Amino acid sequence: MSSSFGTLLKTTTFGESHGRAVGAVLDGLPAGLALDEADIQAQLDRRRPGQSVLTTERGETDQVRLLSGVENGRTLGTPIAMRVENRDQRPADYGEMDTVPRPSHADYTYRVKYGIAARSGGGRASARETIGRVAAGAVADKWLLETFGIEIVAWVDAVGDITAPVPEIGTLSRQRVDAHPVRCPDDATAGAMSDLITAVRTARDSVGGIVACVCRNVPAGLGEPIFDKFEALLAHAMLSIPATKGFEVGAGFNAARMRGSAHNDPFIFRNGVLETTTNHSGGIQGGISNGAPVVFRVAFKPPATIGLPQQTVDYRGRPVTLEARGRHDPCVVPRAVPIVEAMAALVIGDLLLRQHGRRR
Amino acid sequence: MSSSFGTLLKTTTFGESHGRAVGAVLDGLPAGLALDEADIQAQLDRRRPGQSVLTTERGETDQVRLLSGVENGRTLGTPIAMRVENRDQRPADYGEMDTVPRPSHADYTYRVKYGIAARSGGGRASARETIGRVAAGAVADKWLLETFGIEIVAWVDAVGDITAPVPEIGTLSRQRVDAHPVRCPDDATAGAMSDLITAVRTARDSVGGIVACVCRNVPAGLGEPIFDKFEALLAHAMLSIPATKGFEVGAGFNAARMRGSAHNDPFIFRNGVLETTTNHSGGIQGGISNGAPVVFRVAFKPPATIGLPQQTVDYRGRPVTLEARGRHDPCVVPRAVPIVEAMAALVIGDLLLRQHGRRR
Amino acid sequence: MSSSFGTLLKTTTFGESHGRAVGAVLDGLPAGLALDEADIQAQLDRRRPGQSVLTTERGETDQVRLLSGVENGRTLGTPIAMRVENRDQRPADYGEMDTVPRPSHADYTYRVKYGIAARSGGGRASARETIGRVAAGAVADKWLLETFGIEIVAWVDAVGDITAPVPEIGTLSRQRVDAHPVRCPDDATAGAMSDLITAVRTARDSVGGIVACVCRNVPAGLGEPIFDKFEALLAHAMLSIPATKGFEVGAGFNAARMRGSAHNDPFIFRNGVLETTTNHSGGIQGGISNGAPVVFRVAFKPPATIGLPQQTVDYRGRPVTLEARGRHDPCVVPRAVPIVEAMAALVIGDLLLRQHGRRR
Amino acid sequence: MSSSFGTLLKTTTFGESHGRAVGAVLDGLPAGLALDEADIQAQLDRRRPGQSVLTTERGETDQVRLLSGVENGRTLGTPIAMRVENRDQRPADYGEMDTVPRPSHADYTYRVKYGIAARSGGGRASARETIGRVAAGAVADKWLLETFGIEIVAWVDAVGDITAPVPEIGTLSRQRVDAHPVRCPDDATAGAMSDLITAVRTARDSVGGIVACVCRNVPAGLGEPIFDKFEALLAHAMLSIPATKGFEVGAGFNAARMRGSAHNDPFIFRNGVLETTTNHSGGIQGGISNGAPVVFRVAFKPPATIGLPQQTVDYRGRPVTLEARGRHDPCVVPRAVPIVEAMAALVIGDLLLRQHGRRR
Repeated sequence: MSSSFGTLLKTTTFGESHGRAVGAVLDGLPAGLALDEADIQAQLDRRRPGQSVLTTERGETDQVRLLSGVENGRTLGTPIAMRVENRDQRPADYGEMDTVPRPSHADYTYRVKYGIAARSGGGRASARETIGRVAAGAVADKWLLETFGIEIVAWVDAVGDITAPVPEIGTLSRQRVDAHPVRCPDDATAGAMSDLITAVRTARDSVGGIVACVCRNVPAGLGEPIFDKFEALLAHAMLSIPATKGFEVGAGFNAARMRGSAHNDPFIFRNGVLETTTNHSGGIQGGISNGAPVVFRVAFKPPATIGLPQQTVDYRGRPVTLEARGRHDPCVVPRAVPIVEAMAALVIGDLLLRQHGRRR
Repeated sequence: MSSSFGTLLKTTTFGESHGRAVGAVLDGLPAGLALDEADIQAQLDRRRPGQSVLTTERGETDQVRLLSGVENGRTLGTPIAMRVENRDQRPADYGEMDTVPRPSHADYTYRVKYGIAARSGGGRASARETIGRVAAGAVADKWLLETFGIEIVAWVDAVGDITAPVPEIGTLSRQRVDAHPVRCPDDATAGAMSDLITAVRTARDSVGGIVACVCRNVPAGLGEPIFDKFEALLAHAMLSIPATKGFEVGAGFNAARMRGSAHNDPFIFRNGVLETTTNHSGGIQGGISNGAPVVFRVAFKPPATIGLPQQTVDYRGRPVTLEARGRHDPCVVPRAVPIVEAMAALVIGDLLLRQHGRRR
Repeated sequence: MSSSFGTLLKTTTFGESHGRAVGAVLDGLPAGLALDEADIQAQLDRRRPGQSVLTTERGETDQVRLLSGVENGRTLGTPIAMRVENRDQRPADYGEMDTVPRPSHADYTYRVKYGIAARSGGGRASARETIGRVAAGAVADKWLLETFGIEIVAWVDAVGDITAPVPEIGTLSRQRVDAHPVRCPDDATAGAMSDLITAVRTARDSVGGIVACVCRNVPAGLGEPIFDKFEALLAHAMLSIPATKGFEVGAGFNAARMRGSAHNDPFIFRNGVLETTTNHSGGIQGGISNGAPVVFRVAFKPPATIGLPQQTVDYRGRPVTLEARGRHDPCVVPRAVPIVEAMAALVIGDLLLRQHGRRR
Repeated sequence: MSSSFGTLLKTTTFGESHGRAVGAVLDGLPAGLALDEADIQAQLDRRRPGQSVLTTERGETDQVRLLSGVENGRTLGTPIAMRVENRDQRPADYGEMDTVPRPSHADYTYRVKYGIAARSGGGRASARETIGRVAAGAVADKWLLETFGIEIVAWVDAVGDITAPVPEIGTLSRQRVDAHPVRCPDDATAGAMSDLITAVRTARDSVGGIVACVCRNVPAGLGEPIFDKFEALLAHAMLSIPATKGFEVGAGFNAARMRGSAHNDPFIFRNGVLETTTNHSGGIQGGISNGAPVVFRVAFKPPATIGLPQQTVDYRGRPVTLEARGRHDPCVVPRAVPIVEAMAALVIGDLLLRQHGRRR
């Protein structure tokens, strides 16, 4: 298991869904940032279950506790350990899993890899693991915003077949995104998405979606070619989030259909610096930020846990019909928004520290 | 700059396009593999320029030389250093770049990042950097094939708007892929792709495309959650390749449009092991391989270098019309095929070593 | 700050002396090890203050709590998070430190490095940070012993000018070492050491010492030249322990005085394997274990906190006479014994996983 | 094998003693440093064999060639690849090694580890591997000196029983050290050391020694506790050099014999900054540099290759009398001086980049 991410700004997460606690240790954040638990709680509240009718009912309040790294309301430059206790554990809901690997879950692969038949619901493959990411990301996010003015805003771009129009990325705010529980900033689309999620839930099924994200005021020069290019680290970070199936930056897969004459971003001179007139590059050229907004999208599959009966087999190969009883989300993207923001903040923070090292 | 990739199987590349040489050091490969320069040359020849009318004319033979790590035709377990000399350097082609940053190239961002006005054509942002990747990947690829039977085959899935039908991924071979210079295994589609590339070249423009890849016989259990999940490392590896804009695994972005009941891969029992009846997961569940073929796709943008005039500005903000004179490919995906294979081999090899460490 | 150690077996520690808690996350340990809190507590009890008259009186019970990574008494292969709450905090003892950097403490360097005037007593430079190391090391130690039969035993080799005779390293046990509170297995020497420590304490001074360590049944083949040689990782691990000033393996600094003809360890054949007749190499040749006991020594300086008056200056350069009032040990080596064992276990565990990766 | 060292300033070495070439790739060095091959050659010449009667006669000129990373005499910020060809290979000298593991060499452990019977003389355990370190270190050294004024000077402190008086470390220069081939700056001692080495050579034996090193003008604030403390990285770096058996910083093992009242370094105010009146800490407190000179010592064992007959056994356990015929040094410390300097430069350079990342 590899539970650490980052080179200079390093996040280590821990905790199983049905163990005592989940959390993270964030190491490498500079000293002097004003920080208290409320700063972190705000993003955790956007991630936690039960925040709207669109999400799972698991009754967790997910209260974070700072164990280290802060004194008198300021970060010390030392590791910031954060812990959230698990309260509403119901391992009994997962009894059948001991004999039947759930389709498209991690039950089977964890058993093969670790050689142990632990309950996956109590495992690290649960979305509950992302609490540690969101907590660590919230700290990085505050540091980036207050110290460098970097703003990171994610939103729901698609649910199933419903895709939102492109919002005004220059001004989009988290408040605007949160105006609707589905976290799509276009009201009409949000309503349709919400209806679709409700319908899918009623049908005991689930549905996928896409989260988009913009990072504004990222200074030019971040990214460490050749292997730690900005987009490579973003892709790594995003594909490590549970249920993700794809990542694209700037024009993304559409770029594959374009001509160079249409895709290239010409330079202009504005306010004393070079900018580009278009942003098909998504703010990154040659693996390095160019000062334009960094824009990317992440595809999420439909949750594997569904109430509909599924024909499958148990570990011995005997046919089984599986009908999930555990609590689960019919669509993860509304709650995935703060997770995507968190991972983006951790990537950008790490790249900032690495680039600043070059300065005399 | 971060020019190393991998945890136990580590690749370090070096070299500028217009310097003396490019190459790589591959460290961590177990001892005892039969290896000579011809093994590596085969993949380099698939990558090199000038191999068909579809590619750039730069006259490089790209002959690799093994500097270390092999004795009497066997790997020693020590670092394998490989070097390819640059022969057909024409820095004069890039003279204008000193004052004008080429749109959607790395000229501007490299200058901002490193604070030095080096010729990008002589830099690391060049596709020539990928020689080191292909050389290292060819060694890993041979090791995976001979020791574990792992087969990695990439092909051109799309050029511009032209998309190939899905091939028979269970039997697709590199020989089949190479039957047409465009490296699309569907003959009719390959012809159309080839025509498109030729038309684009004639129009002094460029076009994007998609490379798909299948990895067969990957044992179940590879991948290191939480942060080094199999798909996360693949995404990292692929998005570090020049000109890539997107990555998806299994059903990918299509998964976002699906219902869970359709996307889930039910288990069946076959030949004594659990398999899945479908493979929307792309061979990976919970970040760990499940024994099914690992299937993914990588989007490439159209090359930024085009002969058409482009309106842009120089570093001082003065309007300039730019018309590229340097040699360049109108479409990179045919030559990107061995690069994608190389990066896949480096990821799988690293994950194999990491998983095997768990065995008593 | 860099609070993680290890490549495959990775330890991350957190916590300040006067914050809420200290602890560690151990990642990469294979699944299936029987583990409960008592296993860890045993080593923490050997490290904690107040265990004998020779150590500081700080009244901490240092009870460890497992937060994750274990289910039904077995490790899951996931990160093992361990937390010890701080109870007996007395930050008031450290009031003067805000204006006066204590000689040979980290007050001054932490302030310069992190740009923040945090109380060092509440900081990471405290010996209290080693709780996380000992907790993580205890888990690794149990795994190494039960799975591979590897036995790690450290002891007090010297206190001030008093050096113990070399014990029978083939059979030395922790029980034997703990027979005397000073943790020297030679009874007569232990008594003299104890008297010296008491005398030093009475004199309000402190004294240094040396901890020696033997690791038995380490299989041949561990160590990753060139840079992660066995002794290099041991040296790194040991010199990261607070108050250490030196490390030597095998004949160590004495080797510098020897002739090759005396230092070389000839091979013999015993029980079907090659062994050496002497062990000046300390069980490591070319950076790789040879199957003989790994033997090394670590030098600790006298604790910087002393009751004797010290002439120094405050941060503004004004002369100050400093007399420590905080609780402190007159000599750290008795309590350092389990810390040295812990770091040795973490190094060996990491090297085992890295070497096993090579096996088909 | 782990052939890379460093986090932001990363060195990767390659090459076997009897292969085609040895060398290194140095990645992460900032752009803009004036650099040519002569800068590197100077340190290689201090390391190479045959430079005096005190060293091995192997006839290598060790001419370095820059393969990448430099354009128009300035570093680009990209990987700097350096290669030295092997010319005077005499693998025949090592024929007996195929059946007899040489005592205290790496023959046996490499065979066990890698499972292959390669000639160790052609392997990575050879001192020839250090060419890559010295080349990379020479570049880092020049950067540290020219950009930050950091001066690193190592010297021979002891050969066998002969120990030099402590030199004036504030002004000691490499020129002064090189005044005598033995590289001890005290002329009388140097003569005695030289005589001892000659006597040992005549006796077909070998002898150990100690290299000391001072690093001046290291800014306060370098070092990354908890695990990457300055002294921990130095210890790691030094113990990775072939034939090293010990490391100590500041008062080192002597500190174990001292009282705190004598060992503590009181602060004084001088030229506007805090300094210490003594330097038992060796310039490092709490794992972080304090601005005083960093001083450390490294113990080297006597070379394992000796002409005297040795009673040992072959791989099958049959008794053998071994008498070395290969070329070899009777004492390595004169040639180890630039190696120690190189590793120190790589550690300091890495820590500088990591600390500078914290600056806004």
